[in-house]
Amino acid sequence: MLKIERLVSRFDPATGAISGASSVERHLSDLRGCFADTAAYDAALAAGNPLLYSVAAIEPAGGEGDLHYAVGILRPGRIGREYFMTKGHLHAWRLAAEFYFGLSGEGVMLLEDEATGESRMVPLRPQHAVYVPGRTAHRTMNTGGVPLTYIGVYPAKAGHDYGVMAARNFRCVVVERHGRPTLLERQAL
Amino acid sequence: MLKIERLVSRFDPATGAISGASSVERHLSDLRGCFADTAAYDAALAAGNPLLYSVAAIEPAGGEGDLHYAVGILRPGRIGREYFMTKGHLHAWRLAAEFYFGLSGEGVMLLEDEATGESRMVPLRPQHAVYVPGRTAHRTMNTGGVPLTYIGVYPAKAGHDYGVMAARNFRCVVVERHGRPTLLERQAL
Repeated sequence: MLKIERLVSRFDPATGAISGASSVERHLSDLRGCFADTAAYDAALAAGNPLLYSVAAIEPAGGEGDLHYAVGILRPGRIGREYFMTKGHLHAWRLAAEFYFGLSGEGVMLLEDEATGESRMVPLRPQHAVYVPGRTAHRTMNTGGVPLTYIGVYPAKAGHDYGVMAARNFRCVVVERHGRPTLLERQAL
Repeated sequence: MLKIERLVSRFDPATGAISGASSVERHLSDLRGCFADTAAYDAALAAGNPLLYSVAAIEPAGGEGDLHYAVGILRPGRIGREYFMTKGHLHAWRLAAEFYFGLSGEGVMLLEDEATGESRMVPLRPQHAVYVPGRTAHRTMNTGGVPLTYIGVYPAKAGHDYGVMAARNFRCVVVERHGRPTLLERQAL
């Protein structure tokens, strides 16, 4: 059996840290091309390069039937009318689903069917689960005023494909309108 | 893409209910053979047949790469020196791992390697994850004074095999000793 250190992890919702995991950090400069308002992006970047999010992954084992999991912590803020967001990705193994569960803060996920472009905005909050089916690009946005913390659980062999969504971006954007997150077609901006 | 009702679920940690799921309930009479102290079990059953736990499962999709998840709520109590527990199971597809995450209350999980009998007791508490590898029988115990609520996430094709552990029971027991949960060999009782 695995060693006890690989069986048990503790999350710190204040920092997003997981015992036994090292964290990947993404700053504003890493998200070039993600935000629709490029003037607002350039202006924000000229003023500094803040940390937007970090993801700490745990990979206890990598065989068939195994699972990996990660804690994301996404800071609050906006670039123009768009909320701070993650890059978003598809799974390299397209059939792999992902289970998300909110721990703290308030956000939404943008889901986009790779084949049809069909898009959904779904809430990600404490005690809420979001099921991301296979073949579905997914991106997380912090729509609140405090850090958004969440868990993702996925098949060990899922892998991450960032390239497709970086090249064409998501078809829809989530912007603040009348004080709340609103899903719009990018072309309609 | 799946309908929105199948993408998002909300857990109620007070009741263990999940939106969109129906719950399976296990009463004391369903756990015949699980507790070591059969006299205490018979006496408790003669006095009533309390609900020990309920599990509400969500199965958004059942294909390759999909995940299922469930919320368990296990009530506090003891039979003799043993804590209220779940039946425990292996996955029918033995390679399937499971990710557990504590939501409220205080408990432990008993993990037993099917091939070697090697056993571990690991904490299951809010903000703690437990990774159950494949080929590992697992049972949950409530060691606190309030309901223990937790999530489990597993490959959709995992399946549940209760028969093996019902027939031979777990090799170890978790009993209250000096006010805390203690792992003992069943034969040493």
